[in-house]
Amino acid sequence: MVMSLDFDSQVFTKDVITVADGKESVVKGGRHLFDTVREVFADVNQVGVIGWGSQGPAQAQNLRDTLQGSTPVKIGLRPGSSSVAEAEAAGFTRENGTLGDMMEVVAESDMVLLLISDAAQTQLYGDIFAAMKPGSTLGLSHGFLLGHLDSVGEAFPDNINVIAVCPKGMGPSVRRLYVQGEEVNGAGINSSFAVHQDVDGKATDYALAWAIGVGSPYCFQTTLESEYKSDIFGERGILLGGAHGVVEALYYRYRAEGMSQDDAFVQTAESVTGPISKIISHEGILAVYESLEGDDRAAFEKAYVASYMPAKEILQEIYDDVACGNEIRSVVAASNRYDEFPMGKIDGTEMWVVGEEVRKQRVEDEIPLNPVTAGVYCATMMAQIDVLLRAGHPYSEIVNESVIECVDSLNPYMHFNGISYMIDNCSNTARLGARKWAARFDYILKQQAFTAMDSNEPLDFKLMDDFRGHPIHHVLSVVSEMRPSVDISLG
Amino acid sequence: MVMSLDFDSQVFTKDVITVADGKESVVKGGRHLFDTVREVFADVNQVGVIGWGSQGPAQAQNLRDTLQGSTPVKIGLRPGSSSVAEAEAAGFTRENGTLGDMMEVVAESDMVLLLISDAAQTQLYGDIFAAMKPGSTLGLSHGFLLGHLDSVGEAFPDNINVIAVCPKGMGPSVRRLYVQGEEVNGAGINSSFAVHQDVDGKATDYALAWAIGVGSPYCFQTTLESEYKSDIFGERGILLGGAHGVVEALYYRYRAEGMSQDDAFVQTAESVTGPISKIISHEGILAVYESLEGDDRAAFEKAYVASYMPAKEILQEIYDDVACGNEIRSVVAASNRYDEFPMGKIDGTEMWVVGEEVRKQRVEDEIPLNPVTAGVYCATMMAQIDVLLRAGHPYSEIVNESVIECVDSLNPYMHFNGISYMIDNCSNTARLGARKWAARFDYILKQQAFTAMDSNEPLDFKLMDDFRGHPIHHVLSVVSEMRPSVDISLG
Repeated sequence: MVMSLDFDSQVFTKDVITVADGKESVVKGGRHLFDTVREVFADVNQVGVIGWGSQGPAQAQNLRDTLQGSTPVKIGLRPGSSSVAEAEAAGFTRENGTLGDMMEVVAESDMVLLLISDAAQTQLYGDIFAAMKPGSTLGLSHGFLLGHLDSVGEAFPDNINVIAVCPKGMGPSVRRLYVQGEEVNGAGINSSFAVHQDVDGKATDYALAWAIGVGSPYCFQTTLESEYKSDIFGERGILLGGAHGVVEALYYRYRAEGMSQDDAFVQTAESVTGPISKIISHEGILAVYESLEGDDRAAFEKAYVASYMPAKEILQEIYDDVACGNEIRSVVAASNRYDEFPMGKIDGTEMWVVGEEVRKQRVEDEIPLNPVTAGVYCATMMAQIDVLLRAGHPYSEIVNESVIECVDSLNPYMHFNGISYMIDNCSNTARLGARKWAARFDYILKQQAFTAMDSNEPLDFKLMDDFRGHPIHHVLSVVSEMRPSVDISLG
Repeated sequence: MVMSLDFDSQVFTKDVITVADGKESVVKGGRHLFDTVREVFADVNQVGVIGWGSQGPAQAQNLRDTLQGSTPVKIGLRPGSSSVAEAEAAGFTRENGTLGDMMEVVAESDMVLLLISDAAQTQLYGDIFAAMKPGSTLGLSHGFLLGHLDSVGEAFPDNINVIAVCPKGMGPSVRRLYVQGEEVNGAGINSSFAVHQDVDGKATDYALAWAIGVGSPYCFQTTLESEYKSDIFGERGILLGGAHGVVEALYYRYRAEGMSQDDAFVQTAESVTGPISKIISHEGILAVYESLEGDDRAAFEKAYVASYMPAKEILQEIYDDVACGNEIRSVVAASNRYDEFPMGKIDGTEMWVVGEEVRKQRVEDEIPLNPVTAGVYCATMMAQIDVLLRAGHPYSEIVNESVIECVDSLNPYMHFNGISYMIDNCSNTARLGARKWAARFDYILKQQAFTAMDSNEPLDFKLMDDFRGHPIHHVLSVVSEMRPSVDISLG
C-alpha cells in the first residue's frame, strides 16, 4: 500500500493531484512565489549552507538569487577546505561576510542546510548538533543521516526543526535549470520535502519556501526514511548503476554479434541517453514502445519480457539491502578504506574510450532508437517502479526517482559527458553504489535475459500487458503537466 | 595479530607446528586412529546427521564406515524431504533404523550433526534447540548459525556442548578422498574444529574424534566466529566468486584481443583449474611463478602487480561485509525472495557453453600455463591471504581457506565439470556469494588492472618482492607435509 501523507501550509497553496488509485497533496512552485519565499524567510537571520559539493553550490546560489539579500546566505566550510576558491569564484567570500568556518556558520544561522557528503555527515554530526542554536532549523537534502543515526541507535536533538528538501536531480542541473527559469518561469528540478521534527509550527513552510526558492516547479511530500530508501535505491538502480550495467551488457553483446566498436556504442549508450530519454521525457515510457513498428516492435517486446524479471531480481535485492541498513553500513565502511583503496575510475575501459570519440562525431538527429536496447532499458525502469510501488512509496517519489530525475537531469548530462564520466564524478555514496550494482545488472542480463532471448524457450509475453496497462503512465502524465516544456540546456 | 588458541586432548596427540612468526597446535589424523575415535564415541548412543545436502551424505557415510556400528549413525530428514531416496540408496533406511524424522532424530541422539542448509538453520534452530537433550552435543560444520544468532541477538542453549568440525572442502570431496584413504592412509580433507561450549569436559575430544572420523589428515583449531568469517569470505573470494570473476574477465579480454572462443577458454579456465592448480597443490604458489622464464615471467609479473590491489580492494570489501553481518543478512533476505526469484543458472553464457566442448576435446598434458592468467589468479589468491592475515585468522585457517581447499578440493571438481557447474551446484550461501562477487572481480579487473597493464604508467613492482618473500609460502609447505601425496581422483 502507498503510504498516506498530508500537510498544511499557512502561505502556499496546496494542490491535490490524482495518482492512480489515490490522491497526493503537492505545491507548485515558480518565480511568482519568490516574494512569498522571502516572507517565510523573514524571521531567519541567515541561511548557512554547509559544504560545497554538488548540491551546495547550486542551492546556495539559487537561494542567494531568490532571497536577494533579504536573508543572507553564508557558506560554511571546514578550515583548509579545497572548495574555498570555488566558493569565492561564485561570490561567497570572507570579505563580504558570506563565507566562514563550518562550525561558526552552524552556530550563528537560524537555518542550517547541511550539504556535506554522506561520509562527512556521519563523522561530524555530533559536533554539528551540539553547535546548533535551540529552535533553529536543520535542513537536509537527503535522508542518509537518518539512516545512519538509526543504524547506530542515535537521534536528532529534540529542540530543533529537522526538515528535508531533496531535489530530484544533481546539483549542476538544479543550478542550470534555475538559471534557465529566468527565461521560462518554473524551469527547475522537482523536490520532495519532509518534515521530520517541527518545534515551532513553521517547519512545513520553511521546507516549502526552501524548495520553491531553489526553483522546484513542484514539491511533493515524503518522509526522511522514505526519501533515503528511494534515493539510495534509485541511484543504484536505473539512475546510475542500472543505466551503466544495461548499456555495458548490451555493448558487449552487440560486439560479440559482430558490431563495430563505434556502432555498438551508438546502439547502446547513445541510444539510451539520446532518443530513448527524450521520448520518455516528453511523451512517457510507453511512447518509446509505441514509436516502434513491425520487427522493431517485436524486438522491443522480446527484450522487454526477457529482461524484466532479471532486472527486478537485482532491484529487489538493492531495495532490501538499503532498507535493512546494509547499504549504508557498506558506504560507511568503504569511506574508511579510501586511504588504502582510493576509488578508481571506470572510464578507462574499451567502451568508454570508444564513447569519447563517438560523442565528438555525433550527429544528434541520426542517433538511432535501438529496439533491443530500448526494451532492456524500459524493462529495468518499469521493474524499478514496481519495486518502489510494492514498498509503498508515494507515486510522486516513484516517478521522480525512477523517471524524471533520470531523463530530465542525469541522462542529459550523461549524453553530454558520458555515462562513465557521470559515475566517476557523482557523490561517493552514489559512485560506490553504481560501481557495485552495475556489475550485477550486467551479469544477470548476460546470464538470464540474453540467454532467454537467444533460446527457443517461450517467453512470458503477459509482461507486455502489464507494461501497457500500468497505472504509472497516467501518473507520469499528471506530474509532467506541472513542469514547463523546457529541456535542460548544456554545453 | 594472529589470534592465540590452544586446546588439550585426553586421547589424541597434539602436535605443534611452526607457522611464520608463531606456533599452532594441531592433531594429525589417519586410519590408525579409528579405534581411538570409536573409544571416544563409546558413550554416544547415536550420531544423528540432520540433512542430506553436500556435507550430510559425505560425513554420514564416512562416520558410519569409521564407527563400524559401534555407535550407530542415523539420518534425520524433514517429513516429505526429497532427499529420502538418496539417503536410502546410500543404505540409510527406516527399515534398518538409520533414517527418521528430523526432530525425532534430534531428540534421541547424544550427538546431533546439524548439516542442513544455512537458510534452513535460520528457520529451524528454535525447534532444534528445544528438541535437544540436556547434556547432548550439537555439531556444526559451519559457523553461519552463530553469525545469524549474533545478528538477531540470540544464543545457543547453555546446557549442551556446541562444537564444530568444518572440512575445508565440499562434501563430495570429503567422501571421495575418504574412500581413496582406504588405499593411502590419511587421504582426506583437512578440517578446522572449534569448541564453542563445553558442558562436560569432553567437547574437544568429540570434535577431534569427529574430524578424524570423517577422514581429516589434520585438524587445526579455530573459533566459530573465525570460521564463519573466513569461510563465507573465502567462498566469495578465490574459492568460487574470485575464480569465476578472474577467468571471466580474462576470457573476454583475450577474446577482444582476437583469440578464438576455444583458445580463450583454454588460456583462462582450463589453465587455472589445470596446470596452475596442480603446481600450487604440489609445490606451492611461488612455484607457479618460478616455472616461468623470460617473457612469460615478465608477463606474470606485470599481471600480478596490476591485479593485486584491485583484487584486494574487492576482497577487503567482502571481508568487511561478512564481518559486520551484512553478508549474512543478505543471504537470509535472498532466501526469502526465492519464491518470486528462483536462483538462475550462470552456465548459459558464451564462455561456459564453449567450455563444455573444450573439456570434451581436452588433452590434459597440452593445457598451457598462461602467464597472464597465472599472474592475475595468484595475485587474487595472495590478496585473499593478506586480508585474512590482517584480520588475525590462524595460519592453518588461512592456507586451508585460500589455497588447499581451492587446489585440492574445488578446482579439481571445476576442472572435471566446469567452474559454472560448480557455482550452479554449491550451497545456496556460496552460490549467492559467488554470483554477487564474481561480477565485482570482473569489473574491477577490467576497469583497474587491465587498464593499468595496457597503459604506460609505471607499475608497483615492489609487490613482487612482497610476493617472493611472503611467509605464507613456508606455512604452506609445513602444512602440506601433513597430507599424503594423493590427489583427488574424479571421473
